[in-house]
Amino acid sequence: MRVLILGGDGYLGWPTAMHFAALGHDVCVIDNYLRRNIAQQTQSEALMPTPNLHKRAEIFQSLTGHSIRVEIGDCADYRTLSNLFADFLPETVIHYAEQPSAPYSMMGFEEATLTLNNNLNATMNLIWAVMEHTPDCHVVKLGTMGEYGTPNIDIEEGWIDIEHKGRTGRFLYPRAAGSLYHTTKVLDTDLLWFYVRTYNLRVTDLMQGPVYGLSTTETDLDSRLNPNFHYDDIFGTAVNRFLVQAVAGIPLTVYGKGGQVRGYLNLKDTLQCVQLAVDTPVAAGDLRILNQFTETFSVNDLASRIERVGNSMGLSVEVKSIPNPRKEPEDHYYNPAHSGLMELGLQPNYMTDDVVAAMLEEVIAYKDYIDVSRIMPRVKWK
Amino acid sequence: MRVLILGGDGYLGWPTAMHFAALGHDVCVIDNYLRRNIAQQTQSEALMPTPNLHKRAEIFQSLTGHSIRVEIGDCADYRTLSNLFADFLPETVIHYAEQPSAPYSMMGFEEATLTLNNNLNATMNLIWAVMEHTPDCHVVKLGTMGEYGTPNIDIEEGWIDIEHKGRTGRFLYPRAAGSLYHTTKVLDTDLLWFYVRTYNLRVTDLMQGPVYGLSTTETDLDSRLNPNFHYDDIFGTAVNRFLVQAVAGIPLTVYGKGGQVRGYLNLKDTLQCVQLAVDTPVAAGDLRILNQFTETFSVNDLASRIERVGNSMGLSVEVKSIPNPRKEPEDHYYNPAHSGLMELGLQPNYMTDDVVAAMLEEVIAYKDYIDVSRIMPRVKWK
Repeated sequence: MRVLILGGDGYLGWPTAMHFAALGHDVCVIDNYLRRNIAQQTQSEALMPTPNLHKRAEIFQSLTGHSIRVEIGDCADYRTLSNLFADFLPETVIHYAEQPSAPYSMMGFEEATLTLNNNLNATMNLIWAVMEHTPDCHVVKLGTMGEYGTPNIDIEEGWIDIEHKGRTGRFLYPRAAGSLYHTTKVLDTDLLWFYVRTYNLRVTDLMQGPVYGLSTTETDLDSRLNPNFHYDDIFGTAVNRFLVQAVAGIPLTVYGKGGQVRGYLNLKDTLQCVQLAVDTPVAAGDLRILNQFTETFSVNDLASRIERVGNSMGLSVEVKSIPNPRKEPEDHYYNPAHSGLMELGLQPNYMTDDVVAAMLEEVIAYKDYIDVSRIMPRVKWK
Repeated sequence: MRVLILGGDGYLGWPTAMHFAALGHDVCVIDNYLRRNIAQQTQSEALMPTPNLHKRAEIFQSLTGHSIRVEIGDCADYRTLSNLFADFLPETVIHYAEQPSAPYSMMGFEEATLTLNNNLNATMNLIWAVMEHTPDCHVVKLGTMGEYGTPNIDIEEGWIDIEHKGRTGRFLYPRAAGSLYHTTKVLDTDLLWFYVRTYNLRVTDLMQGPVYGLSTTETDLDSRLNPNFHYDDIFGTAVNRFLVQAVAGIPLTVYGKGGQVRGYLNLKDTLQCVQLAVDTPVAAGDLRILNQFTETFSVNDLASRIERVGNSMGLSVEVKSIPNPRKEPEDHYYNPAHSGLMELGLQPNYMTDDVVAAMLEEVIAYKDYIDVSRIMPRVKWK
């Protein structure tokens, strides 16, 4: 199958590319290095070196014999994307090509409009390239659990049946995100849903929680195949920040009360989920939405888990609360459904102590490269 | 009060500008003539001549003594809008600056992306100009009833209380629009709501139905002060198309079954509603949403009303169904709430036979200018 991956240089895009290539699919990735450029501009580079896409594809091919076609270009430019569709004629497109940092999107006007225009136009161009060249193509779009926010009712998988004044209807589950970045993903969903129902596109929207880990079958072949590991306040997740703080011997900084609960998953499970989605394309006119995470943790849960495992490894780890730079509930109801992917066959890799220990070991190997000045919040929601 | 009107050349923007100027407010309008340009490109110019904004402001001042400041510029360009905010320091902004044609937004890729980028960036720039220069400013944004689509449950005013599995929450009422244009207004709402709740902006979103009529206290002073009257398939409403068809002696063309129900209002009532919203600014952090229409009609209702009044005036009017160029339910439940503006004091001007007759008279005066080739659908939803 011809699989096109938009944003193939990213933390998820690159492992996804190797995964599908290793399965024998014909894989093409496109990326314009936007995240790398922004990370450099904001002093938020990844901890471990990541060779460029051409180089990594070369290393991967030398180790496995599988080739990955690499295109450097901007999905927010229609001509670029349309030409690639015309040439490659993808049967599946996996769409990761978005500015992915919530704090970056909250820095100021330039960063906010870049995020809005990049993310909306990449999605719009994808829709039109599919309609123009490959109308039967299955689009697998990465959404985020963050689109839902933290409502006071159970979170369903994308849709909700509402009974109202004696009548019933089925609607997109209401969304209220906590950052402009997350809001652009809400807009993506609105946009995709309009074109799906009007022009009978086939789309699966994977509402993913924060992903952790570097280990996959393919990345384990060579450390140069690892995806990027950001630990800063802008591109780093709470998990990565805590891992690096534990190794650097500085307190794990919990934002506010630490009762913020989110659904997390292992990088290996992202690959499983995306593959399960790709292997079960939806009918024309369907927008299938699946919540993609395997377990929920509060920030306090994460911190104490990493503290415990770190201390058992001889690190000296403590946890400290700092003022929350974000505007978000720090103590809230959170009960999101996530049975859809389990029903498709997902076998979860949970965040066991062994998994945490392995992640800490990977960070320890790069201890000398840690720049602690980039971990504390540099961006505030005000 | 300093009132800034974005999109002040439009069908609603111009009458709104005169209305607030006549009330003694300090009024500034900005417009880049996007609608005029698109109308020209698509052979959809208005029936009656409308002088440019500078000229109309001059005529209005000569008749009333009230001045209106005119700026020609693009609200989707931040520097333009930001400079105007810094200079004028509006206390109220009324935002009409959007590409307003549903069929135009469905013509093709260029028209769709123009609509998406223009509408989203005008709204985004407005948000940031307010935050940068006038954070206490009340924004009155024109939304559209079309954002809701035609759900199977009662349509509330912007928000809905959902009881789900024993818990309750309040959410934006779910939206599912029938064109890309209407979808961009859904995205506007998402975007505004994010910034309102995060940065405590003050926003009123007026979800307006199709507006009809040319007569207001100010436009009645001089026909050169009339707003644009489009009767084509791209910018014209069903009401205007039917009025022109009745006068031209060709059948009123109902799309499909004609059971499409919408909420309509008189231009005079738009002015009342906007003024009621402006006179009751909302608290910081509030997004007030009001459904703005006074009565609902099906397309068949409209056609037979115009047929009846037209025939009573000696015209020879008949009604004919043609294949629906749009993808929309032609027979559906529709029960939208609209008590909010009534509670604020709206005194409706309903679509009486006299009102229809007066509109027909206005068209009759320009009968020779009618170009019937632009009334039949030139754009299909496929």
